[in-house]
Amino acid sequence: VEPFKTYLNLIENELAQLELNKQPHELYEPIRYILSLGGKRIRPVLTLTACEAFGGNPLNAKYAALAIEVFHNFTLMHDDIMDKAPLRRNKPTVHTKWNETIAILSGDTMFVYSQLLMLKSPDKHIKTLLELFNKTAIEVCEGQQLDMNFEQQQQVSIPSYINMIALKTAVLLATSLKIGAIIADADTNNCNLIYEYGKNLGIAFQLQDDILDVYGNPDKFGKQVGGDIISNKKTFLLLKALELAKINPYKLSELQNWLQVSTKHAKEKVEAITEIYNFLGIKEIAENEMKKYLNKALQSLDSTSLNTNYKELFKSFAHSLMLRQT
Amino acid sequence: VEPFKTYLNLIENELAQLELNKQPHELYEPIRYILSLGGKRIRPVLTLTACEAFGGNPLNAKYAALAIEVFHNFTLMHDDIMDKAPLRRNKPTVHTKWNETIAILSGDTMFVYSQLLMLKSPDKHIKTLLELFNKTAIEVCEGQQLDMNFEQQQQVSIPSYINMIALKTAVLLATSLKIGAIIADADTNNCNLIYEYGKNLGIAFQLQDDILDVYGNPDKFGKQVGGDIISNKKTFLLLKALELAKINPYKLSELQNWLQVSTKHAKEKVEAITEIYNFLGIKEIAENEMKKYLNKALQSLDSTSLNTNYKELFKSFAHSLMLRQT
Repeated sequence: VEPFKTYLNLIENELAQLELNKQPHELYEPIRYILSLGGKRIRPVLTLTACEAFGGNPLNAKYAALAIEVFHNFTLMHDDIMDKAPLRRNKPTVHTKWNETIAILSGDTMFVYSQLLMLKSPDKHIKTLLELFNKTAIEVCEGQQLDMNFEQQQQVSIPSYINMIALKTAVLLATSLKIGAIIADADTNNCNLIYEYGKNLGIAFQLQDDILDVYGNPDKFGKQVGGDIISNKKTFLLLKALELAKINPYKLSELQNWLQVSTKHAKEKVEAITEIYNFLGIKEIAENEMKKYLNKALQSLDSTSLNTNYKELFKSFAHSLMLRQT
Repeated sequence: VEPFKTYLNLIENELAQLELNKQPHELYEPIRYILSLGGKRIRPVLTLTACEAFGGNPLNAKYAALAIEVFHNFTLMHDDIMDKAPLRRNKPTVHTKWNETIAILSGDTMFVYSQLLMLKSPDKHIKTLLELFNKTAIEVCEGQQLDMNFEQQQQVSIPSYINMIALKTAVLLATSLKIGAIIADADTNNCNLIYEYGKNLGIAFQLQDDILDVYGNPDKFGKQVGGDIISNKKTFLLLKALELAKINPYKLSELQNWLQVSTKHAKEKVEAITEIYNFLGIKEIAENEMKKYLNKALQSLDSTSLNTNYKELFKSFAHSLMLRQT
């Protein structure tokens, strides 16, 4: 979305200017590295845009926006250790390029640093902002723990899956927007509505991610298509397939057999499970679920007192997220 | 020190009442576990005592004190992963009892939780407290990184060693006291003096720790006597010995040879290196260094406007820390 470009540039500039060229360099170099890997910077851009949209001066939200981006990258650094991920945005992860110890401690330092950035927000909002920011940070940790728990659990219900992605992904998007609104002195009702917009959009975003992993265009999709299938990741698609296959014992055992197949037969596994998804109509069901949350988001947006231009802006942003290929 | 007992009990009670019986329990159980392992609770007790001493209501400093204790235990949880420590207060460390992933994420959650506790401090001090708290948290991370760097470094100077222990250990003691003083509305001069008292006391405390590791009474010392020698830890004693042995090529190569000896010959190694320390008079030098920082601490204490009773209290606390056997 075009109007976001200015804010994206502002964030990139500010990130590059953070005073992170410090000693001991073992601690700060990985922080500069992960922040330099790029990314869509969706969260800080949303903070600045929400602040502007609710009539505030976006520059007042600059440090809060940076705090959120630094916090987000801290969670990536620690999640990558826990998930044993070798790559992040096609570059070696911090614990791969350096080691786990460095990734733990640099991550901790980033988290402290995000608090210091948030503290540079306008005085009158500091307590509210930090309470919201840290409440959200706890939720993100809970979401990551639930995600890891699900790997070990036999049964995961769709509502608990939605709750997990809400905590792990959606609440931080929601908080990014609400923080912008708070700094703009928006009233409580507007703050809560823009939070709901962000939260439902975040859930829709993650569902779209699950869909793209299987049905994304391999040329455009950044990751390996079928990665979730290969690793038996309990996505919405797999959970729904396991639920629907229950009434068809033959399909259920076929699906369960493929889940036992080792990664040596990755290509066949992806093809076979995709076939089962197609047979059960999983793609449409997942798209409908995604649209349900997208519509919830747009309803909340519509209930805000934002003017039409900004409603349209956030609406097209939502649609652009859902139409993305990566 | 007797008057501290009341505050120790208060802290133990409050820690036991923290709302940590939450889901997902994989995240919160390790937090309850590490907080239940006990310890001297020196930091929160100092916060409450400093608040009282400077004429404040210690109950106003309760949440700040808890925040500091939770933060301290977060650093222990992550340090234990990085140091591959199997035991903490004679109990399995979190990453040993559960696993590294749990210890990373529970630690992160504790750190967020410490911020939320600090935010319950009186509104007018929140910004000052959080800036100080997080500045100190960054320093603690830097100290831990320097400590790990020293393991790999051939040469470590005494001043850089003192700087490392100041960051890793002393600044948090200093900040614990200063936070109590700030909440009591003490003036800047007093806040800085009590900080200096705590910082120099913390350095003296760590030097005493280095001495006890070699010369502690094995019956009273909590840890294995000579543990630092066995692991070639670059303590003040070893660094000083390496420095002094330079003028005696025979002693230097004897010391360097023993440093190459594997942990299979731990007993002989501890005996031999202790002999070299004795020959070089390291114990007395270390004790003098410790007393230098103790005296610096007491000078700062004396310059505060605290009344005689409280000066005496903090003075006997300092002496009791130095006379400790564990």
